[in-house]
Amino acid sequence: MDDEKYMRKALEQAKLALEKDEVPIGAVVVCNGQIIARACNLTETLNDVTAHAEMQAITSAAGYIGGKYLTDCTLYVTVEPCPMCAGALAWAQVSRIVYGATDEKRGCHHFSGIHHPKTVVVGGVLESECAALMKEFFAKKRGRG
Amino acid sequence: MDDEKYMRKALEQAKLALEKDEVPIGAVVVCNGQIIARACNLTETLNDVTAHAEMQAITSAAGYIGGKYLTDCTLYVTVEPCPMCAGALAWAQVSRIVYGATDEKRGCHHFSGIHHPKTVVVGGVLESECAALMKEFFAKKRGRG
Repeated sequence: MDDEKYMRKALEQAKLALEKDEVPIGAVVVCNGQIIARACNLTETLNDVTAHAEMQAITSAAGYIGGKYLTDCTLYVTVEPCPMCAGALAWAQVSRIVYGATDEKRGCHHFSGIHHPKTVVVGGVLESECAALMKEFFAKKRGRG
Repeated sequence: MDDEKYMRKALEQAKLALEKDEVPIGAVVVCNGQIIARACNLTETLNDVTAHAEMQAITSAAGYIGGKYLTDCTLYVTVEPCPMCAGALAWAQVSRIVYGATDEKRGCHHFSGIHHPKTVVVGGVLESECAALMKEFFAKKRGRG
């Protein structure tokens, strides 16, 4: 139930991204039952491919903790991390990754061994809500031609 | 010859990292014969696992260009990119990646299909100089116990 609770917080972030006409992906980092970082995808706003929700959440959480390892943290993200974000999460040694919708095209499940060996990965939490936001965004984009 | 010239500039960045007691990796981004970004690894200084030389070079180059795609750019980096950085370089659609030393443990050569299909990857430029800096750093670390 906690996973759903925190995924709803990540979904709130994804909705903020959608309002900015960004690919609607949101993330939060939770440590000892407390949300210590919230972020949404800002690649268009910042003109920067590295500005995925997870990357900003990692940087923000590390700033909060005052250390670069997130060994006691869970990262919640509405869509499966890409290889860049999975690689960053491995460096951060995050204890759990919980994602919503699978990314069939760009998701890191295509790359075995990319996660830190101690990281637990759980997918499919509030999957349909997370996927619906993505579908809404891309349908709108296509509609615009 | 140009590849060696620009790798020497990346090595200058790596030496700046070494002076800061950071893992000595440096990068530059070159566009039409001009260096448009220089960066070194700052993960300890910034307490942030995402602060690899390549990540900062991508952000800096995109800021200079005013767009997030680096399709006409070559990224030079003293050590083979990790999956995080290779993933970021794929999103940026960088045209060439030139690296010095291979990273046997964490290098992205362990993950096939991580690069953008149009990106050309060249390794081994000034390999021994690039590797020597890394060896010097880790020998010192071990010496400290």
